[in-house]
Amino acid sequence: MKAEAALKQEPGTEAATAAAPDLAQAIAELGRRAKAAAAVLAQAPGEQKDRALRAAAAAIRAEGAAILAANREDLEAARARGMSGALLDRLELTPARLEAMAAGLEQIAALPDPVGRTLAQWRRPNGLEIARVSVPLGVVGIVYESRPNVTADAGGLCLKAGNAAILRGGSESFHSSGAILACLRRGLAEAGLPADALQSPATTDRAAVGHLLRLHQYLDVIVPRGGRGLIERVMEESRVPVLAHLDGLCHTYLHAGADPEKARAITVNAKLRRVGVCGATETLLVDRAAAADLLPPILEALAAGGCELRGDAAVQGLDPRVLPAEAADWDTEYLAPILSVKTVEGLEEAMAHIARHGSHHTDCIVTEDAAAAERFLAEVDSAIVLHNASTQFADGGEFGMGAEIGIATGRLHARGPVGAEQLTSYKYRVRGSGQTRP
Amino acid sequence: MKAEAALKQEPGTEAATAAAPDLAQAIAELGRRAKAAAAVLAQAPGEQKDRALRAAAAAIRAEGAAILAANREDLEAARARGMSGALLDRLELTPARLEAMAAGLEQIAALPDPVGRTLAQWRRPNGLEIARVSVPLGVVGIVYESRPNVTADAGGLCLKAGNAAILRGGSESFHSSGAILACLRRGLAEAGLPADALQSPATTDRAAVGHLLRLHQYLDVIVPRGGRGLIERVMEESRVPVLAHLDGLCHTYLHAGADPEKARAITVNAKLRRVGVCGATETLLVDRAAAADLLPPILEALAAGGCELRGDAAVQGLDPRVLPAEAADWDTEYLAPILSVKTVEGLEEAMAHIARHGSHHTDCIVTEDAAAAERFLAEVDSAIVLHNASTQFADGGEFGMGAEIGIATGRLHARGPVGAEQLTSYKYRVRGSGQTRP
Repeated sequence: MKAEAALKQEPGTEAATAAAPDLAQAIAELGRRAKAAAAVLAQAPGEQKDRALRAAAAAIRAEGAAILAANREDLEAARARGMSGALLDRLELTPARLEAMAAGLEQIAALPDPVGRTLAQWRRPNGLEIARVSVPLGVVGIVYESRPNVTADAGGLCLKAGNAAILRGGSESFHSSGAILACLRRGLAEAGLPADALQSPATTDRAAVGHLLRLHQYLDVIVPRGGRGLIERVMEESRVPVLAHLDGLCHTYLHAGADPEKARAITVNAKLRRVGVCGATETLLVDRAAAADLLPPILEALAAGGCELRGDAAVQGLDPRVLPAEAADWDTEYLAPILSVKTVEGLEEAMAHIARHGSHHTDCIVTEDAAAAERFLAEVDSAIVLHNASTQFADGGEFGMGAEIGIATGRLHARGPVGAEQLTSYKYRVRGSGQTRP
Repeated sequence: MKAEAALKQEPGTEAATAAAPDLAQAIAELGRRAKAAAAVLAQAPGEQKDRALRAAAAAIRAEGAAILAANREDLEAARARGMSGALLDRLELTPARLEAMAAGLEQIAALPDPVGRTLAQWRRPNGLEIARVSVPLGVVGIVYESRPNVTADAGGLCLKAGNAAILRGGSESFHSSGAILACLRRGLAEAGLPADALQSPATTDRAAVGHLLRLHQYLDVIVPRGGRGLIERVMEESRVPVLAHLDGLCHTYLHAGADPEKARAITVNAKLRRVGVCGATETLLVDRAAAADLLPPILEALAAGGCELRGDAAVQGLDPRVLPAEAADWDTEYLAPILSVKTVEGLEEAMAHIARHGSHHTDCIVTEDAAAAERFLAEVDSAIVLHNASTQFADGGEFGMGAEIGIATGRLHARGPVGAEQLTSYKYRVRGSGQTRP
């Protein structure tokens, strides 16, 4: 608990909040302001929201030096606390990363307006005209860790969908995120929209997260972004609905009917393209009858790429570099250059393994057998099921959504990549001519 | 706590559950079985689910005498506990009500299959074919009060959408609901589907509800049906996402441009057709300038219909029967023949009143002014907004959805009437030809 931090005023936050003597009150006040701003944004035409996004991009370019200076402050503090290389890299901003952030906001501006779409409409026998029309979700809480670019990406997507957002970044990126948020708020103000549509708690006090998770009076949804510890805490504690995925234990299954070259290319890409993303394959399943044909070149390529291999006895028999897999391996999301490899009797056993050990995130079958592919696509109960394509395509950008705030594995509201369209709700507009109900 | 009740075996429940020594374990076992059954239902063709629904309807007709006998047992116990007329009426089953229940199941069978619909599909520049396809939600928990017909309606809708359901009815309808559930389970079995897709706890112990609300390992959503106390408890305690509405504080707003005859007919219907439903109007707003023209015949008709009237000073001046409204009246869902009536300056004040006092459920504007109507429809943030039609149309059946499990006022997943379509989720099926991610 850092009481003084609650009183420290930061760029992009409001004096009223920062000066509040009580953290719970200060967070509630953020919520109240966000809700008021959300009502304005809900009525804003798409063109005005896009203008705000482009103005925010311009502000990030114009304020590059100030953002990098704020980032240096965070980096120095992080180094002083002994932060390691990979985490430091996530935290670090560069001119190229700033430009990517600004360009990302412009890409979001170029997407179609997800609000005001007529999702369905019909006429009742009594003459009532019913339309289901998309509206913003309302106020989105975003709780994330060290990557300061989430401030721009998530804030921009929320704005696009007409939502207000309360952005709670990691304490280690406090100054960087604050500087970026100030640019987003400038964009809102320049477009004539309320800056309070995007806010952050003016404190690094971790208790602020707890208060946000109980703010169901003002928040409509919470989106956590980060490691398992954060997601687990949010899912456990939140009184506000959560869109998230806890695990990304993805499988690639090589069916006996797989094309060997596709199997090799897809498996190596699914595992090694980036090992730390949620769509990375963690377990490779392969039909026993085809293992001796399919696996050797794949194991060779993976080992050459620096991947540690852990397999069952049959797999170990095919390559001396394969270590014995233990029971826990089938339930482990490595997020590292490690792959567990298991032989299965066929499609049934592969799907049963995925049902038991998977995380309902993303799973792939590699085969030229159309019937096997259709069964896999129909029966595997995951947010994304793929046929003959890398599990690393599990990404809103790759789906053509322009951007994503995250991937959800829950079954309510949005499943899979959460883009601007998934950050909307709907309402019914009913037009009558004096109808009364019998 | 009635420990012996947990041990009592009822129709439609399983010996393994009823004999479980520990209630939490017994409820978890229901969940485990429901999840296993849900996996089977998710793959069942629409024709098979419809066959189960029709077989259940036939079983209700065939077992009418047994269901009515079970209902008499509930009614006698309820009378012995001194249950009052309206509640007794809700609990009572008659041959006509049984027939309505059976016919309702057949109507659900006649609806299109909500599962397997392609909600969207597109092709990416790299050749990936992406389709968003509807799938069942999974396992639905339904917690309801005395009306035993909810067992058939809610159970039938869940089955239609390929979901398993755990139905927890009120203790006062324990035997009636059990007898109806037995018919639904017979329908499932006759169609070759697992009877465990529809289950009930074999106990009237209220602690069972608490265990259900924490069963997030197996339950995907909870739908509470009943009074405010029940809904509040479920929303407060549940660790499973909830689809519900807490209040139905609906408004009818008579704009200065209202047609007097439409205003009268709509207001009387919206208030008095049925006063105990969530779509009943509780507050009438009227433009001050038009009050003297519009209100007198409406107040006359309402008073003649037995409605108590509570109004501000201007309204009281128009009819001596109008009692003074107090501040609390604007926030009260009467669910009774009482109406609060308030004059407003115009559209802005009407919308501000609804934003402040409404429950985001259903609100109506009566006017011949198209511009005023469009603003009201666009800006009032309720699940259902109507122009020139009674708020009592807030109903899945009236919307043409065939049936509803309830109405939701939350903003995630489903808003407004929750029918079979709203009891589905979706997944992405991605078809490739060897694509890897750059």
